[in-house]
Amino acid sequence: MSEPRLRAKELDAADGLAAQRAEFVLDEGGEAVYLDGNSLGALPVAVPGRVEDVVRRQWGELRIRSWTEGGWWTAPERIGDRIAPLVGAAAGQIVVGDSTSVNVFKAVVGAVRLARSADGAAGPAGPARDEIVVDATTFPTDGYIAESAARMTGCTLRPVPPSEVPDALGDRTVAVLLNHVDYRTGRLHDLPALTAAVHAAGAYVVWDLCHSAGALPVGLDEHGVDLAVGCTYKYLNGGPGSPAYLYVRAELQDRFDSPLPGWNSHAEPFGMRPEYAPAPGALRGRVGTPDILSMLALEAALDVWDGGGVTIEAVRAKSLALTDFFLECVEAYVPGGRVECLTPRPHGERGSQIALRCPDAGDVMKRLIERGVVGDFRHPDVLRFGFTPLYVGFADTERAARVLAEVLAETGA
Amino acid sequence: MSEPRLRAKELDAADGLAAQRAEFVLDEGGEAVYLDGNSLGALPVAVPGRVEDVVRRQWGELRIRSWTEGGWWTAPERIGDRIAPLVGAAAGQIVVGDSTSVNVFKAVVGAVRLARSADGAAGPAGPARDEIVVDATTFPTDGYIAESAARMTGCTLRPVPPSEVPDALGDRTVAVLLNHVDYRTGRLHDLPALTAAVHAAGAYVVWDLCHSAGALPVGLDEHGVDLAVGCTYKYLNGGPGSPAYLYVRAELQDRFDSPLPGWNSHAEPFGMRPEYAPAPGALRGRVGTPDILSMLALEAALDVWDGGGVTIEAVRAKSLALTDFFLECVEAYVPGGRVECLTPRPHGERGSQIALRCPDAGDVMKRLIERGVVGDFRHPDVLRFGFTPLYVGFADTERAARVLAEVLAETGA
Repeated sequence: MSEPRLRAKELDAADGLAAQRAEFVLDEGGEAVYLDGNSLGALPVAVPGRVEDVVRRQWGELRIRSWTEGGWWTAPERIGDRIAPLVGAAAGQIVVGDSTSVNVFKAVVGAVRLARSADGAAGPAGPARDEIVVDATTFPTDGYIAESAARMTGCTLRPVPPSEVPDALGDRTVAVLLNHVDYRTGRLHDLPALTAAVHAAGAYVVWDLCHSAGALPVGLDEHGVDLAVGCTYKYLNGGPGSPAYLYVRAELQDRFDSPLPGWNSHAEPFGMRPEYAPAPGALRGRVGTPDILSMLALEAALDVWDGGGVTIEAVRAKSLALTDFFLECVEAYVPGGRVECLTPRPHGERGSQIALRCPDAGDVMKRLIERGVVGDFRHPDVLRFGFTPLYVGFADTERAARVLAEVLAETGA
Repeated sequence: MSEPRLRAKELDAADGLAAQRAEFVLDEGGEAVYLDGNSLGALPVAVPGRVEDVVRRQWGELRIRSWTEGGWWTAPERIGDRIAPLVGAAAGQIVVGDSTSVNVFKAVVGAVRLARSADGAAGPAGPARDEIVVDATTFPTDGYIAESAARMTGCTLRPVPPSEVPDALGDRTVAVLLNHVDYRTGRLHDLPALTAAVHAAGAYVVWDLCHSAGALPVGLDEHGVDLAVGCTYKYLNGGPGSPAYLYVRAELQDRFDSPLPGWNSHAEPFGMRPEYAPAPGALRGRVGTPDILSMLALEAALDVWDGGGVTIEAVRAKSLALTDFFLECVEAYVPGGRVECLTPRPHGERGSQIALRCPDAGDVMKRLIERGVVGDFRHPDVLRFGFTPLYVGFADTERAARVLAEVLAETGA
C-alpha cells in the first residue's frame, strides 16, 4: 500500500467526525467519492422521512391547520435560528426564504437605504454616497443583482478585485458586496479586515456566505457584519434549490427597509391592512408565503449539526486537514506542471474546496465522474473539488487524487 | 331526506368530474368537508410518491446529475408550460419560481419599464407616465409590493376600487395591477374589459390570478394580457408555499427588463460571465436556483388535469353549479338576515368561493371546523368557503350549508 494510502487510514482512524458520515446517504461499499458538496450537499438520512411526514400528514391530513399547529408559519425564523450558530450569529437575526439572488437584492438595496437613513453626524454615510462596490470575481448572480440594485437606487456599480477593495473605498462608497469564499478558486477572503475597512470608510457591507457557511466559522456578530446572505444547499445540505437566508444585524433591523415588503414581513400579516407596517426583527426580511416542502427538508437536514462534537470549529479543522491531504496526494501522484492549484496554500486564505486548473478540465472531469470521483467543472479550465467534512473522509480524498492522476496520465495536454 | 339532500344526490350522480375526487387524499368515510382549497389545495395522490423519488433517488442517488439528466434545470419553464393551457396561454410564456410577491415585483417593475421603453409614436406610453394604479381591494401583498415598485421606479401608487378603474386611467397611468378574483368577496373582475381599458389608456396591465387559475378560464392570450402572476397552492394544489409563476406575453418578452436579473435568467448561465445578457423568452423571468422539492411536487400535482374530460371549462361549469347550490342550501337552511352574501350572484361576477358576512364570523368558523366543515375566516367578519370542483361534491356542499345553519342557530347575533 502506498504511503498516502497508509496515511489516509491513520487519518480516518483518528477522525473525530468520522461517525457523522452515517448521517448521510452515500454510496457505501461502492467506489464513488462525492466531492461536489459545494454545489449540492449529499442527502441527510433524516430528510426523506421528514419530507414524507410533511407531505402525507401535515399537508395531506392536517392541511391548513399545519400553518399554525404544525409550525409552518414560523419556519423561516425558526430555521434561521438553527443556522445562526453555524455562522456566529445570535438568535433573531436570520430568516430563511427565497433564493440567494433575491436575498442579495434585499440586502444590497437595504444597505444603501441604511446608509442614506443614517443621521448626518452620528451615522456613517450621508446621501451623497452613490457607489456600490462589488467583488469583481463574484459568482455572477451577485454582480447582476447588484447592478439592478444600483440602477434602482440611483447608484453606480463598481467591480473591484477583492484585494484592491480597501483602496477603492471612499466618500462615495455606500455599500460593498463581497463573497466570503470565491466560488471558483476557493480563496477565503478576510471578512474581519474587509468589514472593518468598509466601516472605516463609512459604508455598509453585505457578505455572501454561500461557499463558507457550514464549512468554516464566519463570526457575523463578532466582526460586526451588517448584512449577509447565503444558500443552504451546499455545506448545509438542504437539498436542491433549498431556500436561502438573510442576516440583518440586530442593531440595524429597525432601520432595515426591504425593497420586497411582502405580506409575510408585515407587523400584522393577517390583519390584511392596505397600509404596510413592517414587522420588528428578522421577520422584516420575509417576503411571501414560504415554500414549506423545501424549507422543512432543510430543517431536517440541519439535524446533522446536533451530534456530539459536531461544531463548526471541528468541521473547519477537518476541512483544512482534508484539503491539505488532497494537495499532498496530488503532489505525490500527479506529474509537476500538469495542473496548477488556484486555491491558496495558507489556511487563512482557503475555503473548503480545491480548484485545479488544467487546459482540458472539461474532459478530465467527465472521465473522473465516469470513474466515480464526482467534482465539477467551471468554465473554461477549472476542476473543482469540494470537501464536506461531515461525510468526506481521508481515504476518499486519497482515492480522488489517485484517480485524477490516472485520468491525467491518459489525457493530453 | 330533505329536498336539498335529494338534489345533492342527483347532482353528484350527474357530475362528469366526480371521478376526479379519487385523485386527491380526502377524508373519505369521515365527515369532513374541505372548503379551503382557495387557501391550500388538497394533496393529490400522485404527489407523495413523486416527492419520495425526488428526494431518495434524484437527490440521494443521482445528486448533481439530476440538474441535467433529471430535468431539474428546465423545470421552471417545463412546469410553466403545464400551467399555460389552464390560463389560456400558449407555451413559452410562463415560468414557475419564487413567491407571488416576488413575481408581482418583477411584473409591475417590468410593466413600468415596458411602457418607458415603448417608441414614442408607435408604443403606448411615454416617459411622462408616472402613476401605477392598483386595485384598492387587492390582497394586501400586491399593494405593498406595488408601492415598493412605484418608489423604485419614480412613480406614485394610486389605489382605486376596481369598478372605478376605467375612469381613473389617463395620460399619467403607466401600469395597472388588478386581481382577477377578489380574495375576500370572491368577486370576479372583468378581465377582458379592464385589459382593453388599460390598453386604450396606453398603459400596461398586470393580472394577479391567485384566486382564478385552476378554477375558471382566464384567456390570457385571447384578451391580450401583458403580464400576469399567480400562486399554485390554491386551485392548482401544488402544496404549501409551492412556487408562483410569471406570464409575460410573447411579443413583450424581448423588451421585458427584470428588476431581479439573477443568473438563471442569463442567456448563458453556465458561462459565468460578469456581464449580464438576458435569455430570450419566458426564461428571462427566472431569478435564482429553483426550489426543486416544492417545484416537482407541483409538477406531480398538475397530473390531475390530465384525466379525460378534465378541462378548465368543465371545472368552471361545476364550480358555478356548486356555488349556486351552496347559496340555495344556505337560503333553505339559514334564517334570512343571519348572514349576508358578499359574493355576487351573476355568474359573470363570481369566482369559485362564497363569502358570507356575519358579525361573529371568527367564532362561527371555529365551530364549523370543529364539526368538520373547513372554510376560513377573514378579518373582521367574513366566512370564506372555497369550492374546488375536482374534489368537492354536491353532498359536501349541502352538508356544509346544513352544519353552518346548525352553528348559526346556536350562536348569538
